[in-house]
Amino acid sequence: MKHVHYTEVPLEPVTMAGAQGVSVRWVISEADGAPNFAMRIFELEAGGSTPYHEHPWEHEVFILAGGGILTVEGQEEKLKPQDVVFVPPGVSHNFRAGDEGMTFICLVPHQK
Amino acid sequence: MKHVHYTEVPLEPVTMAGAQGVSVRWVISEADGAPNFAMRIFELEAGGSTPYHEHPWEHEVFILAGGGILTVEGQEEKLKPQDVVFVPPGVSHNFRAGDEGMTFICLVPHQK
Repeated sequence: MKHVHYTEVPLEPVTMAGAQGVSVRWVISEADGAPNFAMRIFELEAGGSTPYHEHPWEHEVFILAGGGILTVEGQEEKLKPQDVVFVPPGVSHNFRAGDEGMTFICLVPHQK
Repeated sequence: MKHVHYTEVPLEPVTMAGAQGVSVRWVISEADGAPNFAMRIFELEAGGSTPYHEHPWEHEVFILAGGGILTVEGQEEKLKPQDVVFVPPGVSHNFRAGDEGMTFICLVPHQK
């Protein structure tokens, strides 16, 4: 069992090419014994963005605070708190924060 | 791709034996094409509780609002907003809301 306030998990900068103003906390991961998928909480600075990319795994997302734009296959979607997003495998996407920044939960299956 | 405010997904009563004052929204599920795991958002009324039970799959949880008590193998943990909980497979647990009720995200792998 693991029980923490999410801010107890260290905030790490995301250094992946194309990421700008992005940090992450891996709040539940394989290191905790999670057998199938990981919970991460991302913090984007105002104007920060994740790379526009695709990969063969899905994202399951819940917006906690702030807002911004999700681009999926060139289409823009406005994000606000309490929005839920499912990004299927193989679909190009990126998250870009507005003026308030954006904090969201993003779950991914473990890479096998 | 799916993008909704979570309240756009219907709230359904949980009728499982032992559940009291519990409703759920399956915001991302197999019906949306999610290949591995589902995102549900539970709403517990004040004093509401989920069954005290165990099962061979994990829970990955994030508390959105309100608060209450998580009992895991007889031990009580006080839950507050922004807490993260990992309940491993095979561990007895239940969630019980306090006076304000409790809303939380709970992810589970698809049953195979």
